[in-house]
Amino acid sequence: MLLGSIEAGGTKFICSVGDEKLTILDQIRIETTTPKSTLSKVIKYFKQFKNINSISIASFGPLDLDLNSSHFGSILKTPKLIWENVNILKKIKESLNVPVFITTDVNGSAVGEQFLLQQSEIKVSSLVYLTIGTGIGAGIIYNNHIFGLGEHPEIGHIRVVKHSDDKSFHGVCPFHDGCLEGMASGPSLKARTNIPGEQLSMNSPIWNRIAYYLAQSVVSINLIIHPKKIILGGSVVNDQLIKNIKKQYVDLISDYVDTTNLNDLITKSCAVDNNSATIGNFILAKRFVNV
Amino acid sequence: MLLGSIEAGGTKFICSVGDEKLTILDQIRIETTTPKSTLSKVIKYFKQFKNINSISIASFGPLDLDLNSSHFGSILKTPKLIWENVNILKKIKESLNVPVFITTDVNGSAVGEQFLLQQSEIKVSSLVYLTIGTGIGAGIIYNNHIFGLGEHPEIGHIRVVKHSDDKSFHGVCPFHDGCLEGMASGPSLKARTNIPGEQLSMNSPIWNRIAYYLAQSVVSINLIIHPKKIILGGSVVNDQLIKNIKKQYVDLISDYVDTTNLNDLITKSCAVDNNSATIGNFILAKRFVNV
Repeated sequence: MLLGSIEAGGTKFICSVGDEKLTILDQIRIETTTPKSTLSKVIKYFKQFKNINSISIASFGPLDLDLNSSHFGSILKTPKLIWENVNILKKIKESLNVPVFITTDVNGSAVGEQFLLQQSEIKVSSLVYLTIGTGIGAGIIYNNHIFGLGEHPEIGHIRVVKHSDDKSFHGVCPFHDGCLEGMASGPSLKARTNIPGEQLSMNSPIWNRIAYYLAQSVVSINLIIHPKKIILGGSVVNDQLIKNIKKQYVDLISDYVDTTNLNDLITKSCAVDNNSATIGNFILAKRFVNV
Repeated sequence: MLLGSIEAGGTKFICSVGDEKLTILDQIRIETTTPKSTLSKVIKYFKQFKNINSISIASFGPLDLDLNSSHFGSILKTPKLIWENVNILKKIKESLNVPVFITTDVNGSAVGEQFLLQQSEIKVSSLVYLTIGTGIGAGIIYNNHIFGLGEHPEIGHIRVVKHSDDKSFHGVCPFHDGCLEGMASGPSLKARTNIPGEQLSMNSPIWNRIAYYLAQSVVSINLIIHPKKIILGGSVVNDQLIKNIKKQYVDLISDYVDTTNLNDLITKSCAVDNNSATIGNFILAKRFVNV
């Protein structure tokens, strides 16, 4: 069995081919430019392999995942204007003539993370994968299924209470003053300091504010969904930030729920080379072979 | 078939007997005093009926609903101290010797609301029932099932951004400064004005703040769970408040998601005499007959 994975991101498309054991046999990185150029390279890549059984796409969004929609598989309103209304699913499917599944990038990662946990003997039927990078998004597994079929969580835009040192900052979201993504995504770090997040010293007081916002989102996720695990991933996340998020989570929750299992609840992605979406795609593609 | 319903609240227990068509045949109101006195009256009531097939309890909480717990069916840490650790499920079950199901009060209502919608030809597979009264809680139906088995949403304690006119108010929650329940529950109205919520003039500027907090919670629910419906119930809710919540929801969401279907998304409970939990209990009891 030969399975295809497309991680469709705003910066790059990572295309991979794997076997039924989810081993990556081949991989390529394609820059995200125009839909025409990018997708034709993706298609050319997969055409090399004669016997691909199925492909799964984990894409940036928002996506139309409404099974009853005539635009199912299309990218919706996005700041990347040239990608708006592009039906990425349809293009790949018609060109390669194999079954193609599509979900959000974070759902792909969530499926991969669940599998990686299982390999470490940690079985959880519910988890949330929260990514903090250029944007903030969540993939939710509930009762071993991707939560939401035609819809996906837009947790990046929940409101957060501003940190007392951050009152004058409105965030980088064009829609909202003080939403999670606006206040805590990578671009928010750069907007405040003019230094990209990865380069910002861990001594910067900004990190404490980022941790405060992310702790609020973790509180909301936990109080609304009660997952067994909340996995943090994305370019902004590092060990020191996670430590700070846990500390502020405890302050915020203030004894209302038991926090003794905090180190089990909130963890960093255990994916090597950030490959959880690829693993997730292989799993989803595999399920789709027999559909 | 004879079905029993127990709506266990902090003020009163409403016990009802119904048939398989979910018609209420008999009902009694028992004041909530001590567990011993209240539960013995409940048991006495149901003992009058010889052929009860099963009973469902929709109870105030927090409840231990972890099927693996030895305290399954118990009331957990609660301000009503004499009810703490009372295993309400066990007491009812052992005294009446019929199958007894237990869930939260809001889950019972959510199940009932879904049924009442179906009767009005509105079929939704996912909905959130949000109650705003002495406390704030949510029951979630997802894919036609109660969301969460051993756990239930504690949405009352998510943080909200304080209204600019409300900065000096910390809320009535003993655990959190500025959580939803602390800022928007019935007791919060009284704490600010010394007038019970039901008696507070709709011209009071406090209502605008309450609507602001509830609108934030509705935004969070919608962005995280995307239910087809968010039903507002509880003693604090009235038509004017719902109108204000919708207005502030639109302001907060700020064009990020389509709000054209807002009047379908956010609605008031359609239960007569506030009986959605009773209907829900009958449905749950009925399912439990054959377990």
